[in-house]
Amino acid sequence: MVNEKMYDLGSEPSAIRELFAYGLARKAEIGADKVFDFSLGNPSIPAPDAVKQAIVELLDEPPISLHGYTPAQGTPGVRSAIADSINRRFGMKATSSNIYMTAGAAASLAISINAVADAGDEFIVVAPYFPEYRIWIEAADCTCVEVMARELDFQLDLAAIEAVVTPKTKGVIVNSPNNPVGSVYSEENLRGLADVLRVKQEEFGSVIYLICDEPYREIVYEGVNVPYVPALYDNTIVCYSYSKSLSLPGERIGYIYVSERMPEWNRAYAAICGAGRALGFVCAPSLFQGVIEKCVDVPTDVAAYAENRELLCQGLAGLGYEYVEPQGAFYLWVKALEPDEQAFAARAKEHELLLVPSTSFGCTGYVRIGYCVSKETIANSMPAFKALMEEYRG
Amino acid sequence: MVNEKMYDLGSEPSAIRELFAYGLARKAEIGADKVFDFSLGNPSIPAPDAVKQAIVELLDEPPISLHGYTPAQGTPGVRSAIADSINRRFGMKATSSNIYMTAGAAASLAISINAVADAGDEFIVVAPYFPEYRIWIEAADCTCVEVMARELDFQLDLAAIEAVVTPKTKGVIVNSPNNPVGSVYSEENLRGLADVLRVKQEEFGSVIYLICDEPYREIVYEGVNVPYVPALYDNTIVCYSYSKSLSLPGERIGYIYVSERMPEWNRAYAAICGAGRALGFVCAPSLFQGVIEKCVDVPTDVAAYAENRELLCQGLAGLGYEYVEPQGAFYLWVKALEPDEQAFAARAKEHELLLVPSTSFGCTGYVRIGYCVSKETIANSMPAFKALMEEYRG
Repeated sequence: MVNEKMYDLGSEPSAIRELFAYGLARKAEIGADKVFDFSLGNPSIPAPDAVKQAIVELLDEPPISLHGYTPAQGTPGVRSAIADSINRRFGMKATSSNIYMTAGAAASLAISINAVADAGDEFIVVAPYFPEYRIWIEAADCTCVEVMARELDFQLDLAAIEAVVTPKTKGVIVNSPNNPVGSVYSEENLRGLADVLRVKQEEFGSVIYLICDEPYREIVYEGVNVPYVPALYDNTIVCYSYSKSLSLPGERIGYIYVSERMPEWNRAYAAICGAGRALGFVCAPSLFQGVIEKCVDVPTDVAAYAENRELLCQGLAGLGYEYVEPQGAFYLWVKALEPDEQAFAARAKEHELLLVPSTSFGCTGYVRIGYCVSKETIANSMPAFKALMEEYRG
Repeated sequence: MVNEKMYDLGSEPSAIRELFAYGLARKAEIGADKVFDFSLGNPSIPAPDAVKQAIVELLDEPPISLHGYTPAQGTPGVRSAIADSINRRFGMKATSSNIYMTAGAAASLAISINAVADAGDEFIVVAPYFPEYRIWIEAADCTCVEVMARELDFQLDLAAIEAVVTPKTKGVIVNSPNNPVGSVYSEENLRGLADVLRVKQEEFGSVIYLICDEPYREIVYEGVNVPYVPALYDNTIVCYSYSKSLSLPGERIGYIYVSERMPEWNRAYAAICGAGRALGFVCAPSLFQGVIEKCVDVPTDVAAYAENRELLCQGLAGLGYEYVEPQGAFYLWVKALEPDEQAFAARAKEHELLLVPSTSFGCTGYVRIGYCVSKETIANSMPAFKALMEEYRG
């Protein structure tokens, strides 16, 4: 009667969503301040005032153009503004012809994958990874090939990636700053990946795209450098979203940047236009295209996340928890206190701590703590983390 | 290097877009008032004031929730408001669980097709038809089966549809009020279709969905009745968009309504959630979900279109043109003055009349005139239509 694969996708429980729903119910039961919900990646910093200001200004424009269809790839104005910003910040030579506006990172990735892949192609993802990657890859009739990140620092494991590249490898998806780990790939690490891929392209006579999922680019701490991948590897497609940087996750606004250094980039760009069309996208929401044109260089406010990170790391370190030093995004990747991270998360839940087991991200032994919450939630959760630790240490 | 099908889709010229681009260039050359551009289906009536008012009110809400992720299927508030409106107007018993918010009609259709179809299934479309139907059907690895509408009144040709229904038929896409013809299917005609499909479902033991593409539902003239298909046929999926009714085509906001009369409708609904996820949709734009909740019953302003329709019909009839009496939407379907509609459109272009040849909609012998333009454009175009007619009549 219906497509069974789509039915399964639409009805399968999501551990993260279920945990969040549990948290809402539990808060209603025992009080919101008694439940420490670290399950979601929803920005807790409001959109900057500049966004509201931009909307108010735009509302003075004639509604027919303001709310009208834009070209499928976006208005020339916002695409130029983004290209200029990329050039200014990263020394590229993009023009509006390299920018395709999308309904956020999910759209950017789904469109990019469908644009470059044929059925049977392979995409490499680096575990732990955002679980929707597999959905989009498989929806394009391609194979999702998982490679673990390096064990200690969660940087890219170049030897492991090299070992799984085949003539069918169409792309490698990298996500830095990383969800769920909070790591940022170093320039040396990314240069190493670029070298591996160049050699493999040569060997197989193939094109291997680096698809960079970058919604957390602006959310970094202590001045850490997030290398710009298109500067290191020509066949790069950047999938960007303003969901986190401007706290607009519900508005679905982002872009795809097809690097002008890619040979025949205009063919890849045309395929992206085609894939957008085939997937049912018409144009990115027009009002927010206007907002982005006005806000393209509005700085991301990370002060609250930085404070949370500090408080959480100090607190958990003092209690004896081990975690990956977070350089970006708003997640802490914490070693479970027993090998079975699901059992660990279940015990944490008894202390009203809602942590996402690493199984949701394709690996074992960890939990993700989203610290895009109020400072009070973190401060008040410490006794629970202490009790949890004591339960294990006896 | 890239997916060739997507490349073709992204680089193939669109006759409509090309005509529009030509019009812009030509206006710059000889003056905007000298070119009569009837190529596009962009609403020329601005969004009602209630939309701006709703946005202004919503901007007072906390930005974290206003611009935050909503559930994938949309906020409970907007879904309830839409279900209530459907029940009030059409006597259905929908609840929020039957409504899935989308990024407009294109998303609604692409998601619905992918939700119900397996590779190799067939969808029937009624020519002339919106050309993207074929794109979405083929992107789901299904076959697009064209059936001509009835020759004189462009109602559904039931015998022709019956003749092409097979055990692989998964759906029939109907679009009423119709783009490009402007016809509205009568209740008798739609009841006839429902009978045909019920018999065929019985015969083949299959489920055949009626997929109703309804962005023009509110744009009708002289009180014509647009029958509500879910009241006539249980296996109906309504694909709605506010692009035309509230003049918001760029904002990408609409919904899918899975009829509660469909047996196991909750399975179809789940498959729609899954297909939305697989295609890269996360949620419909959140601000405009709020706008729709507030504006769900704002009446559509059709006065300007009605005036244009009157002026255009009277003018062309007086000059001897033949056309299908338009009951809805904002298109006039005019018989070309020679068998080759492309040659006719080319000659019209020499008179600065930009008309879309029917080839773009899967049939021959006609041109589409979009009368969602200024009244002046129509009034001022009459001498050109006259000259064109004289050229043919000699």
